[in-house]
Amino acid sequence: MKRLLIENIKVITMEGDYIIPKGYIYIEDNKIVKVKEGVYEGERDNFEVIDGKGCVALPGFINCHTHIPMTLLRGYGEGLPLMRWLNEKIWPFEARLTEEDIYNGALLGIIEMIKSGTTSFVDMYFREDTIAKACRRANIRGFLGSPIIGDMWERQIDETLSLYDEFKEDDLIKIFIAPHSPYTCSFETLKKVGEIARNYKLPIHIHIAETKDEVNIIREKYNKTPFEVCKDAGLYDENKVIAAHCVYLNDDDIIMVKNYDFTVVYNPQSNMKLASGVAPIVKMMENGINVALGTDGASSNNNLNMIDEMKSASLLQKLSFNDATALSAYDTLKLATVNAAKAIGMEDKLGKIKEGFLADIILIDFNKPHLNPPTDIYSNIVYAANGSEIKTVIINGKVVLKDYKLLDIKENETILNANQSFIKVIERL
Amino acid sequence: MKRLLIENIKVITMEGDYIIPKGYIYIEDNKIVKVKEGVYEGERDNFEVIDGKGCVALPGFINCHTHIPMTLLRGYGEGLPLMRWLNEKIWPFEARLTEEDIYNGALLGIIEMIKSGTTSFVDMYFREDTIAKACRRANIRGFLGSPIIGDMWERQIDETLSLYDEFKEDDLIKIFIAPHSPYTCSFETLKKVGEIARNYKLPIHIHIAETKDEVNIIREKYNKTPFEVCKDAGLYDENKVIAAHCVYLNDDDIIMVKNYDFTVVYNPQSNMKLASGVAPIVKMMENGINVALGTDGASSNNNLNMIDEMKSASLLQKLSFNDATALSAYDTLKLATVNAAKAIGMEDKLGKIKEGFLADIILIDFNKPHLNPPTDIYSNIVYAANGSEIKTVIINGKVVLKDYKLLDIKENETILNANQSFIKVIERL
Repeated sequence: MKRLLIENIKVITMEGDYIIPKGYIYIEDNKIVKVKEGVYEGERDNFEVIDGKGCVALPGFINCHTHIPMTLLRGYGEGLPLMRWLNEKIWPFEARLTEEDIYNGALLGIIEMIKSGTTSFVDMYFREDTIAKACRRANIRGFLGSPIIGDMWERQIDETLSLYDEFKEDDLIKIFIAPHSPYTCSFETLKKVGEIARNYKLPIHIHIAETKDEVNIIREKYNKTPFEVCKDAGLYDENKVIAAHCVYLNDDDIIMVKNYDFTVVYNPQSNMKLASGVAPIVKMMENGINVALGTDGASSNNNLNMIDEMKSASLLQKLSFNDATALSAYDTLKLATVNAAKAIGMEDKLGKIKEGFLADIILIDFNKPHLNPPTDIYSNIVYAANGSEIKTVIINGKVVLKDYKLLDIKENETILNANQSFIKVIERL
Repeated sequence: MKRLLIENIKVITMEGDYIIPKGYIYIEDNKIVKVKEGVYEGERDNFEVIDGKGCVALPGFINCHTHIPMTLLRGYGEGLPLMRWLNEKIWPFEARLTEEDIYNGALLGIIEMIKSGTTSFVDMYFREDTIAKACRRANIRGFLGSPIIGDMWERQIDETLSLYDEFKEDDLIKIFIAPHSPYTCSFETLKKVGEIARNYKLPIHIHIAETKDEVNIIREKYNKTPFEVCKDAGLYDENKVIAAHCVYLNDDDIIMVKNYDFTVVYNPQSNMKLASGVAPIVKMMENGINVALGTDGASSNNNLNMIDEMKSASLLQKLSFNDATALSAYDTLKLATVNAAKAIGMEDKLGKIKEGFLADIILIDFNKPHLNPPTDIYSNIVYAANGSEIKTVIINGKVVLKDYKLLDIKENETILNANQSFIKVIERL
């Protein structure tokens, strides 16, 4: 058995707002066995010990919506209007990605995420089998869904099911089913996806109502909102649904989706950058809808930094609802931890530092000018931190980042490989 | 003579969008003498040499609006509505600050700024004499204005003039005159400040139209906009004006202020956090108004990180003007460099890496997962960076940060002193 002790540590448990001012976290294999105030007094043989002095422990962040290999497209085609950006840049580039490129892009994104405190992510991209390899290489949790889009949907569903078979016993990878959106999937596709999800108990990862254009297209085709179309296709019935964006969700939609196991994933930076609009998160939360947080892909953000995203998340709601007290720092932290764990069906295993939970823990180094005075640690993490303060990261009981250094992955080589992949794809254009 | 050579460096000159892919910057004393592609081939005796491999050089950022000692109030009173926050928390706290506290808070803020690439700042706070000492201690440029507010304005103007006398020959400190705002200064005060500014050639630093409430108060009192009140008091005549916020500036105001030497300082994060609104920056720039960028104080941000601020600056304009191409990464960089230099009357000395300019230069370390691939370096700096990539900072020809370490200031001691000041002020409450 592997034993790990983190001592001298302030712990944000995310169990209500219970903070342990100074204590320890004791981990056996991949589980948190003890979280307690004071000094660990048991024996210390065969222990790995981390001194948490000056640090704050927090559950690792769960990035609930991204397209991880799109790190390769960071800054590519910057400054073009949306449709030209997609048609002239993004889609031609993506059509030329090899399996190796996807692996290189995914691994670059994964190390970026680990270094900024993310320990799990929900992904939608081609070749999730390859992305799963990158997850295993880096020891990060991946909740992976291969996109189902357009006319090839039957083959894509089969692909999802074979991924499901391959990874159903995996401790880090879970396969989701990922219909791209109500405007890129036919009604028949949405119906079939709903059925498959029910039969295999696969959580659904989908984009809904990202732009006003999408809402108009759907209105024209169905005379319904995008949320109603998915409902009428039976997509939500008995299923767990993780819906990215939901910028244009009206009051009736809110009342309707709250009857289901439905999580909205808020992507504030991507929605701002693409000028999509502001999701009415405060109103959703007042109505009891579960809301989580995602960065979206690096090509519309342009990073995968959940601390950066939390700040924008909170500030944008305050502005939008004209209320400086809206979406507090603590509630924002919930979006990235507790609510996210609920979204992926892991609320009894992830999102808190709690006995019996999986050991996905990050240590934030408060010994930084911009994190002092430490008057309000929730506020300092959400509004003052920038994501560079993550000193140590533990995923599934394994230390993957220590003293700011990745333990098992060569950072420079990963960067180099991704940059070479970018150049090779450009040469193929 | 002190000689400094930065070699193997990519240089963002901010002269148009001229980028030197690989070259060198040669500095004598506090001036940039040569910026050139290729290898430096002169003699190297008595040189300090910095290898810029993997880095990008950029003019240091100029934070055009802050209240530097308010780092002490970071996160203090978080979550209260604006007036309760001011009345119950901020003002009672500020009333109990000693000179030592102000020094400690200022130095904490200054090291935070240096570490995130800021080399100059425009400040408005009490005891600018003390803040000037912290600037000299850290070798940062301060453009300092003691607030003129309420009934004590005559004494405060005298204070400004005695500061002016003290620092008029200083190479790092310049004294500005800082009427707080049109709603906290009488018309008579604004008139007098305008006169003094003209007589002594002091740039004016003021808050204008931060909130809707302010606009309403001024409308009630004067039946004018805040911008018109200042104009009618003669504040703008022959003066250089730096106006923070300008959230509620209408089309007539835009046409009016562009006749003057008037810079708007955009403070997007503070305006979002306090739910003040969105300044129409795109429209101002289309009309030829000079726009710079500021973080405001750390109590409403809650950091002093200009890279963080640039990202919000650009994203918020895209959202607000419903245009993904609005306020490009390059134009956003201008807000923090070239436009800011113009704001403070240093456009022929700061804001560019150019022969004859002052040597205020930062080196951004691109050897980071989140800054790769380096496809679009403007975009990567504005949208992907977080401010933690600043490896080296040179101010007025002096290296103050090298390999991420402050050379002349003990970081831990500075943090400790500020935290102790915070505790002491609380004890005095």
